[in-house]
Amino acid sequence: MRASQYLIATLKETPADAEIVSHQLMLRAGMIRRLAGGLYTWLPLGLRVLRKVERIVREEMDRSGAQEVLMPAIQPAELWQESGRWEEYGDELLRLKDRHERDFCYGPTHEEVITDIARNELKSYRDLPANFYQIQTKFRDERRPRFGVMRSREFLMKDAYSFHASPESLNETYQLMVETYSAIFRRLGLDFRAVEADSGAIGGSKSQEFHVLASSGEDAIAFSSDSDYAANTELAEALAPEGERPTATETMQEVATPDQNTIDQVAGFLNTTPDRVLKTLLVHAPKDEDSSHQPLVALVLRGDHTLNDLKAERRADVAEPLTMASDEEIRKALGVDAGSIGPVGLKVPMIVDHAAAHLADFVCGANRTGYHLTGVNWERDVALGETADLREVEEGDPSPDGHGVLGIQRGIEVGHVFKLGRKYSEAMNATVLDENGKSVPMDMGCYGIGVSRLVAAAIEQNHDDSGITWPTAIAPFEIAIVTLNGHKSEKVAQTAEKLYDQLRQTGYDVLLDDRKERPGVKFADLELIGIPHRVVISDRGLEAGTLEYKGRTDADKQDVATDDIIRFLAARVIAD
Amino acid sequence: MRASQYLIATLKETPADAEIVSHQLMLRAGMIRRLAGGLYTWLPLGLRVLRKVERIVREEMDRSGAQEVLMPAIQPAELWQESGRWEEYGDELLRLKDRHERDFCYGPTHEEVITDIARNELKSYRDLPANFYQIQTKFRDERRPRFGVMRSREFLMKDAYSFHASPESLNETYQLMVETYSAIFRRLGLDFRAVEADSGAIGGSKSQEFHVLASSGEDAIAFSSDSDYAANTELAEALAPEGERPTATETMQEVATPDQNTIDQVAGFLNTTPDRVLKTLLVHAPKDEDSSHQPLVALVLRGDHTLNDLKAERRADVAEPLTMASDEEIRKALGVDAGSIGPVGLKVPMIVDHAAAHLADFVCGANRTGYHLTGVNWERDVALGETADLREVEEGDPSPDGHGVLGIQRGIEVGHVFKLGRKYSEAMNATVLDENGKSVPMDMGCYGIGVSRLVAAAIEQNHDDSGITWPTAIAPFEIAIVTLNGHKSEKVAQTAEKLYDQLRQTGYDVLLDDRKERPGVKFADLELIGIPHRVVISDRGLEAGTLEYKGRTDADKQDVATDDIIRFLAARVIAD
Repeated sequence: MRASQYLIATLKETPADAEIVSHQLMLRAGMIRRLAGGLYTWLPLGLRVLRKVERIVREEMDRSGAQEVLMPAIQPAELWQESGRWEEYGDELLRLKDRHERDFCYGPTHEEVITDIARNELKSYRDLPANFYQIQTKFRDERRPRFGVMRSREFLMKDAYSFHASPESLNETYQLMVETYSAIFRRLGLDFRAVEADSGAIGGSKSQEFHVLASSGEDAIAFSSDSDYAANTELAEALAPEGERPTATETMQEVATPDQNTIDQVAGFLNTTPDRVLKTLLVHAPKDEDSSHQPLVALVLRGDHTLNDLKAERRADVAEPLTMASDEEIRKALGVDAGSIGPVGLKVPMIVDHAAAHLADFVCGANRTGYHLTGVNWERDVALGETADLREVEEGDPSPDGHGVLGIQRGIEVGHVFKLGRKYSEAMNATVLDENGKSVPMDMGCYGIGVSRLVAAAIEQNHDDSGITWPTAIAPFEIAIVTLNGHKSEKVAQTAEKLYDQLRQTGYDVLLDDRKERPGVKFADLELIGIPHRVVISDRGLEAGTLEYKGRTDADKQDVATDDIIRFLAARVIAD
Repeated sequence: MRASQYLIATLKETPADAEIVSHQLMLRAGMIRRLAGGLYTWLPLGLRVLRKVERIVREEMDRSGAQEVLMPAIQPAELWQESGRWEEYGDELLRLKDRHERDFCYGPTHEEVITDIARNELKSYRDLPANFYQIQTKFRDERRPRFGVMRSREFLMKDAYSFHASPESLNETYQLMVETYSAIFRRLGLDFRAVEADSGAIGGSKSQEFHVLASSGEDAIAFSSDSDYAANTELAEALAPEGERPTATETMQEVATPDQNTIDQVAGFLNTTPDRVLKTLLVHAPKDEDSSHQPLVALVLRGDHTLNDLKAERRADVAEPLTMASDEEIRKALGVDAGSIGPVGLKVPMIVDHAAAHLADFVCGANRTGYHLTGVNWERDVALGETADLREVEEGDPSPDGHGVLGIQRGIEVGHVFKLGRKYSEAMNATVLDENGKSVPMDMGCYGIGVSRLVAAAIEQNHDDSGITWPTAIAPFEIAIVTLNGHKSEKVAQTAEKLYDQLRQTGYDVLLDDRKERPGVKFADLELIGIPHRVVISDRGLEAGTLEYKGRTDADKQDVATDDIIRFLAARVIAD
């Protein structure tokens, strides 16, 4: 491509409304433009990247044996009523009416449509397994679209849906998709992790997320220093401390702690540290339908630990959604202020986190407003009862798989694989005949990749102060040729044209920057856009028989003999 | 692809609701499935064809220098209000509201969005010309969607928009697009014509349509036997007959023609032919705003000719839209029934078609109910006044360009190129600075191809009683390998696998039909699907050292030596 005939729409200023670096750089590099909230046009340069991502996703999905289809964006309400999601799905579902006032939606996902197809086209266990995918435009009417294409309303997604005659077959395809996704993200040149995840609203029994690691990521991921273990911190197990609880050495005493309401305040006042103070949180327990009484349950953690809401919610003796008891409810139930509750003499059931259960000689509330107990010990001073994993994992915790310790990094979710089981096939009566001629609902899996979001995630992971530092596999162009004074020096122009032709014929994506701009402008644009390899052609160089080369992230430029440039570039690009 | 692991969803019966052959065959071949009215899922086999069409369109657009972008499907109402089309565009515009009750539409076309981008990104005549295209999903809420993907509501379109600093530059790009479209349709292997067309609702000054010729086409196209001339019959000029009008030989007489109301009846009753009888049609003339009186004007044609509404409407002395006078209006104005009107003594202005003006000794209404005149001659019996081209062209008419005679064929519109001029750039203030630093609106062109419709059009042109006969360039697979008893004969299976691998490595799209089906079922499926080349591998053939080959439209199959099959197929596929 010749830059003089191409829309290079770079911006010097960072647009004020772009909060994260990928959004800023995509606007500045002229990759996208905002049409309306959460709606973006992909300009030529951005679309080149999007198409490269799309192509890699398609090739790997094809290689896995999945079959590409294309379903309509607009879907009839009837199917969503059949699955029950027409009512369940919130305001993110863009509902609309056609000219005949019939209800439709702009599909945010396609479980219903593909299940409808499967129940019509797949008749026998012999037709299974089958895995259908599409790369298609979706719409989610986000309340607050932001971060550019990272969280836009209209977006490009690869969604796949597999159908099976047994859970074992689903397991196999699920595992194949995990491997396929890993292959895709590796080919894209991204640092990523597959993490255990919560299935969330789509339902189903097991799921994993694929995260591109980047400090701006919305999700925290815990991963092992020594193994493949990785999980969303929401789901990562905090192992119980090993070994015996330390022996009691102190005597329990009640001390006045006036106006000391937080763990830090109490610890400071008593000259100890938060990890030796218990935190006792009162939350709602499940309520009898007939009763107006709201029962409470106490969750006891070490003062320096954080409650993991999801872990608490999953317990049968905790109400869902997790609801903290109000100060009034606490006073009514216990006759004491929230800041002075503790296990000793507590009048509600109690669940103790493993780490809290491992303490000796600890501090806790005295169940008397303005007082705490010191030198408390389990079993000696208070029965321990049930212990459980209630807390968020932290850096340095042992990895739940027994190998190494946990680190925590932030990640951007770019892929998700689910075992759906029979949720949709049962609701929509999608059955096949099994080996005995009996009609059985199909087992289903679903597998998504945010194709447009991947472009932004790649930038979050690959940028510096000058702009984007693309992995070569998805760079808009692999090589840039820059002419200095090309419109004046015939020799420069001719050399550039010849190199341009040679490189293109070899199969490289080349941008010939033949614009009548100052060198500084060209260099700044090319670094902003992030082209991995740059060759500069100047009269001075040609006189010396050299061209100037610089890799995008190289500290220094270097001279390369004109005759050697093709070989030199080949070695560089292949090494990427 | 192995058929055993691929969704071959052929149907034996023709679905009852499919009216045209492409719709029937796309359903029967398992290319598409209906989700709702005008909404279709592309199954794997159909999508392969769609993607091949898409790829050819993209390659040729790129070759022309157009730059690919991707605009959102959902567009804000504000832009359409700016262009004036929010109100103008009818019910085909799918209007919707987002969760914040803001107005949007699902774009049926993208003039507004691209003009908004152009006015922001293009600043100077130096940035022009620029031609942006996308291949993107659109929605038109057709009142009566039908014919499958031929006239669906959601469809895949290639739309391009060019921007210029002068009408001359627009002319150049317009012409380049005409050539690009021709290259695309040639590569697709289709018999097509570029025809002069009416610009219709999009507006603008000049346009051409590209039609795939097929007897089921909705449009009639007139084309020259000897030149490139082609035009929608609506627009084709009917030349005035050459030479002098024949001399009068008869005397004018009034004859009673009781109950003879049609041209055919009158001609039969008077023992002549319709081409010697005048047809006088009364239509509304433009009305004074202040007056309640509806003036009429007479259009006089030869009895065997058909009025061309568009030609009549374009005249200043005819009201638009064209409205035939009612029987009551005619009786009120002329005191005579509609079937007995004629030029002689007519009390309203008259326009005579060139062919009617060339008659001598003709028959026409006597302006007296139940009577006609015979032996009438222009100027002798009645002043001729103004003559004009008012009729539809017919087979055998001289071509308007002076070369050859017209034939008429039916066509399916698959592409359209427009000169938009400044309609949108003026309405939306899309200007650039010209060479003198003056701000001027850009000239625009727009260029569409119905990508999904092309698949259906290709089938309308390429099918026989057994199914589809794809041009090889867009066949879902180029070659099918069929095993007979492949699950029993190891030799058959091994030979098939080897050939399959060899052909795929050579770069062919191959379907290996390894299904456990009877040969007849496989052959019928492959003919229905329309794979151009078929190789059958059987034990009997292998014993004789041969494979059986049949081209999809060949009358006979033939044996080819096993060792020679690769060379043989190469020659065949290249010849396509």
